[in-house]
Amino acid sequence: MKQLDVYSIARCEHSVIIVFLQLILISVFLVCTIYDVQADASETRNSLHYVYGGFKPESNSIYKFYNMFQDVHVMIFVGFGFLMTFMKRYGFSAVGFNFLVAALLVQWAILCNGFYHMDENYKIPISIVSLLKGDVAVATVLISMGAVLGRTSHMQLIFMGLLEIAFFSFNEYIAAKFFIVTDAGDSMFVHAFGAYFGLAVSFVLTRKQKLTDEERSMEASSYMSDMFAMIGTVFLWAFWPSFNSAELEGDAQHRAIINTYLSLTASCVVAYAFSSAFTPHHKFDMVHIQNSTLAGGVSIGTMANLMVQPFGALIIGSMAGVLSVIGYCFITPWVDNKLKVKDTCGVHNLHGMPALLAGAGGALFAFLASEDSYKMGLYQIFPAMASPDLKATDEYPLLEGGLGRTSAQQAGYQLAALGCTLGIAIVSGLFTGLFVSSPLTSGQSRNGAYKDDPCWLIHEHEHPTELPLKVSTVSEHVTDIHPPTIVTTPQI
Amino acid sequence: MKQLDVYSIARCEHSVIIVFLQLILISVFLVCTIYDVQADASETRNSLHYVYGGFKPESNSIYKFYNMFQDVHVMIFVGFGFLMTFMKRYGFSAVGFNFLVAALLVQWAILCNGFYHMDENYKIPISIVSLLKGDVAVATVLISMGAVLGRTSHMQLIFMGLLEIAFFSFNEYIAAKFFIVTDAGDSMFVHAFGAYFGLAVSFVLTRKQKLTDEERSMEASSYMSDMFAMIGTVFLWAFWPSFNSAELEGDAQHRAIINTYLSLTASCVVAYAFSSAFTPHHKFDMVHIQNSTLAGGVSIGTMANLMVQPFGALIIGSMAGVLSVIGYCFITPWVDNKLKVKDTCGVHNLHGMPALLAGAGGALFAFLASEDSYKMGLYQIFPAMASPDLKATDEYPLLEGGLGRTSAQQAGYQLAALGCTLGIAIVSGLFTGLFVSSPLTSGQSRNGAYKDDPCWLIHEHEHPTELPLKVSTVSEHVTDIHPPTIVTTPQI
Amino acid sequence: MKQLDVYSIARCEHSVIIVFLQLILISVFLVCTIYDVQADASETRNSLHYVYGGFKPESNSIYKFYNMFQDVHVMIFVGFGFLMTFMKRYGFSAVGFNFLVAALLVQWAILCNGFYHMDENYKIPISIVSLLKGDVAVATVLISMGAVLGRTSHMQLIFMGLLEIAFFSFNEYIAAKFFIVTDAGDSMFVHAFGAYFGLAVSFVLTRKQKLTDEERSMEASSYMSDMFAMIGTVFLWAFWPSFNSAELEGDAQHRAIINTYLSLTASCVVAYAFSSAFTPHHKFDMVHIQNSTLAGGVSIGTMANLMVQPFGALIIGSMAGVLSVIGYCFITPWVDNKLKVKDTCGVHNLHGMPALLAGAGGALFAFLASEDSYKMGLYQIFPAMASPDLKATDEYPLLEGGLGRTSAQQAGYQLAALGCTLGIAIVSGLFTGLFVSSPLTSGQSRNGAYKDDPCWLIHEHEHPTELPLKVSTVSEHVTDIHPPTIVTTPQI
Repeated sequence: MKQLDVYSIARCEHSVIIVFLQLILISVFLVCTIYDVQADASETRNSLHYVYGGFKPESNSIYKFYNMFQDVHVMIFVGFGFLMTFMKRYGFSAVGFNFLVAALLVQWAILCNGFYHMDENYKIPISIVSLLKGDVAVATVLISMGAVLGRTSHMQLIFMGLLEIAFFSFNEYIAAKFFIVTDAGDSMFVHAFGAYFGLAVSFVLTRKQKLTDEERSMEASSYMSDMFAMIGTVFLWAFWPSFNSAELEGDAQHRAIINTYLSLTASCVVAYAFSSAFTPHHKFDMVHIQNSTLAGGVSIGTMANLMVQPFGALIIGSMAGVLSVIGYCFITPWVDNKLKVKDTCGVHNLHGMPALLAGAGGALFAFLASEDSYKMGLYQIFPAMASPDLKATDEYPLLEGGLGRTSAQQAGYQLAALGCTLGIAIVSGLFTGLFVSSPLTSGQSRNGAYKDDPCWLIHEHEHPTELPLKVSTVSEHVTDIHPPTIVTTPQI
Repeated sequence: MKQLDVYSIARCEHSVIIVFLQLILISVFLVCTIYDVQADASETRNSLHYVYGGFKPESNSIYKFYNMFQDVHVMIFVGFGFLMTFMKRYGFSAVGFNFLVAALLVQWAILCNGFYHMDENYKIPISIVSLLKGDVAVATVLISMGAVLGRTSHMQLIFMGLLEIAFFSFNEYIAAKFFIVTDAGDSMFVHAFGAYFGLAVSFVLTRKQKLTDEERSMEASSYMSDMFAMIGTVFLWAFWPSFNSAELEGDAQHRAIINTYLSLTASCVVAYAFSSAFTPHHKFDMVHIQNSTLAGGVSIGTMANLMVQPFGALIIGSMAGVLSVIGYCFITPWVDNKLKVKDTCGVHNLHGMPALLAGAGGALFAFLASEDSYKMGLYQIFPAMASPDLKATDEYPLLEGGLGRTSAQQAGYQLAALGCTLGIAIVSGLFTGLFVSSPLTSGQSRNGAYKDDPCWLIHEHEHPTELPLKVSTVSEHVTDIHPPTIVTTPQI
Repeated sequence: MKQLDVYSIARCEHSVIIVFLQLILISVFLVCTIYDVQADASETRNSLHYVYGGFKPESNSIYKFYNMFQDVHVMIFVGFGFLMTFMKRYGFSAVGFNFLVAALLVQWAILCNGFYHMDENYKIPISIVSLLKGDVAVATVLISMGAVLGRTSHMQLIFMGLLEIAFFSFNEYIAAKFFIVTDAGDSMFVHAFGAYFGLAVSFVLTRKQKLTDEERSMEASSYMSDMFAMIGTVFLWAFWPSFNSAELEGDAQHRAIINTYLSLTASCVVAYAFSSAFTPHHKFDMVHIQNSTLAGGVSIGTMANLMVQPFGALIIGSMAGVLSVIGYCFITPWVDNKLKVKDTCGVHNLHGMPALLAGAGGALFAFLASEDSYKMGLYQIFPAMASPDLKATDEYPLLEGGLGRTSAQQAGYQLAALGCTLGIAIVSGLFTGLFVSSPLTSGQSRNGAYKDDPCWLIHEHEHPTELPLKVSTVSEHVTDIHPPTIVTTPQI
């Protein structure tokens, strides 16, 4: 009881902290944000006819991005949320914390990204692209959350996310400013960063926590919880092509969608085959089906807009499928036992290793890239490969001078960006782990891991009713079928 | 048994009534509807090249509205349907009645709306916009359904909806003709109307029904039913920006999407904080998470296309989050005990109060609206504020004369529209309540509230198998793990 | 145990076979496929400005088809997947095999369709349309899968699908080349083909399998499994208009969406009415609600783009609703007992008979089609009805010469296409049934029908925990509410 009281006091503080955070965010939005010109009624061009210099209504960026944004939005709140509901008594927390953390952090992510792209008045213009980037940035946190799921309170997740978004935005800024690489599906900046940041946090947490056997037993799934997790899997799988192509256009977007679709089909097929091969009695393991089938979306990410060719996309997806199942069967247990790093959802297998594959593949296909295979489109995908004196022409109005990198140099920069991302992710993850495992925030996490009960109101009548329920329903039923005596049989 | 027989006869009549209603609807469609020109092959302009006066295929309204329509469509049938599945043994009815009621009433809603917009031949042209308006109108009924859920038969819900759609369309017509207000997200015309109409119906029903303790005990949720309800919540939350912006375009649509997205994130965050603050032991209550997180979508509705600024949207969403949780914790119990009005889903907290906030906010921002902040767009959002002698120009081809209202007058009309909506909703709701609680239709509702069994075939083998099932699966399993003796242990 | 070993060896071969199939597919993609010009960076026109002969980025087919494709994609993986999860212990297999089979076969379907549409270099250009056609083709297999669900291993389903896709593509080629009919929603080529092919396979399987009583008992649904199935139903219902209109444009697409939407609402309403009329005690039967409500989408398919008028769409949907419920109540039991053809999901009622209705209706409305009602659009919908000497004009640039069929002839060809489709489906289905029921592949299907356990790893702690779980959760709970003594009450 005592601990519960202490705990509940702590929790009340938590409410205050969350409200306080929201108020700070509102203040920063007040000071720093405005509507983008395309969403701003005070922008004359929005009402002026286009022949007089106004915008065409149909050219508003909302039409270009909104549908892709919605697909990504569903991935973040439905896909990630339900994918994490696989534990038998952690469903409320999985989908619920995903919801809270994402809703709070998209606001913070919009600001963090905006700080690097302010206008001349030091204002952040908010557009549909801001919302899309906010959702994508939050995916990074949700991936890290998968590594520590069930062993962290919602407050620890919020603090982790606030720090992670800041480091994530910094890393993205560095990459955009110095490395100038392509990463259409954000496999490096979102998936690799999120996975290794999360594992670094977990590295610290695992050392500070001792799980009881009863707690460990709760980490398992149940038949129903696995069914709910499949909702997340299929939505993530179906909408992943939108995630990898949301910020592209024209043939690059078309190509990214084809590549991602094909890569996902191959990773799904291969994940099933290896799941059955590596599982006792050659059965399928839901863990692999829920996760490894998605690895192809990560592994093609960096290359999604490159000329990998349809068969190339299938190969990349197949490799990710194998890699991911092997990870679940052999690497994760080893990391858990030897390195003492717990990885609740196996993000290393779904996001970590496939993202490394994506980064390496991106470098390979950058090395293979040439004007021959990309024509002038090469300099839109790899602007740094344009020669410094390249100029826009009537035929190619989008051309501009670059750094004159060779394809080999570009490949090197792709690898450098991956290395830098891993470095920042791991270092900042360790730091964040120390912070969130400090007594200040770690109160709840020891209070029953992998269980909703410490954190969620479970209506008391639920458990009792499991008996009354059966009785009542049978009895009603009985009135038109069996003799009521059945109801009173002791074994029910 | 006897009662069941009586009941079953009644139900057979119900089938006849439903078929009869469908036949009437078919007849009215036969007499009154045609395809809109943009869907009509007999319209020459659809095949004629545009330089000769034909339509451009890409300018067909289907491209402008279909994706928004689909998002709303998912909200109506998936979102509302699963949101209401939170009761432990009422899931079939929640998602099933939502499905039946919505499918029947969209047909009626298309007609009711069309009666006010007939062409010169007294025909109703059917287009994608008709379908969209049909879905939106039905949302009103589904909101009211939330207030009386579990205590009404599907027939009562159908009769309620038939009347409600008629009153809803009348109210919308009045508002469009006399008040000429803005309500982009239909917070007043759909959410306020639906909530207070439903509460008025419930006011009458609660007086005619006495619930047994056993029935009251069935109103609770179970772990699994709460998980299903979360499916509805996240889809409603993710697609709400489409609901609030579906009929807008250009910068107004862009702004409505940004405002709704931000308002929803704030209401989600604040709802979590206050849920934990007001719940025993500071746990989260699924009721708040499933509902109050959505209040920001309602509260921003009327203002979605106005210049509330990003921080303003966050404030409006935060206020809705607080208001909604306070409603569930303090107001609903009071309304239930003192006013004797049951509100099964707490629609007063999710739709009612946030819609009042939206209406008031709409008046405030109408009062603040000026050419300075909206340029000429002001007269598209508030056409009544245009001076009577305003004319379309080359620069601003969409301008037309209005009523020359001042912003203060417009604000007054916004409040008047809200008041009129509440008045019509409550009066027509009380009338409808008396009708649906008349002996004719109320047969089933007394027959076991909050339970699927009276209305749905629950396969008899279900309950029994819960025992055999366990045994069988364990036994198969046992063959490769434990000694089979376990199977026969009495406690299983 | 012994059987399990035999079985497990067989299964390991299965993994090898699946990987082998994926490798073959990769090789064929390597040899036969390229990116479509609109997805190919090496296509100069993609980077060249359009005034110099380049493509406009916004004219890329990805913008026209991607959103429709995504709706269909969700139907295939979420809709079909969850619709089949209705059996109480077959949920993993339903959604899991749907996932595996679809992911593998879309690759094969893209190739099979491509073989009939190769470019001059014998290459298959891959575009968003290829992916869309792949998804649609796979729907055929998933429909057939519904007929044999629970009595086939995943390997049997894969082999069945590989053959079915080949026959499906052949039939489609024949129809396109010789019959030149309209079938906007593929009711004939997908739904009729899939249903009767699946029934033919089941005809053979049913003769080779003897189900035990215990197996038969597993075919039933449970409360939770029916809830999951409703997820599939509502998504299929909501997105069906996209399925029927995905490959159309302009007014034809607009009309197809209106017709499908209205037909679905009517089939939903009528299915509820007849479900209650034909079910004991006039309750609703979830089987009808999950399936017959969708029949309107199938029955309008062939006519979706025709001038059936709104009331006509409602009539066609209503007829499908009646037909489908009657099928479940009277025809399926008869087919099962007399013809000895088991139909697990009742695909004959959801897809088979409604598709026959669609085919017949298509012929009727082809017979009624005239230049009067379609203007020049007639020759885009029925190109074979254009006179041979018809030429493209400035006014009607899309016109081209046809076969000069009369509307009566066109109606005849519509019926001939339906007959040919049924013939090919049944004959190839019988052949496929013999193949998949051969000892080579039939190993697992006898190993516990309608159960996940033989094929899926069910974590052993699941069943045991159902007891400990209850205790533990109650106890935690108890600590803050009841005296702990409750925990030890024997009946829990």
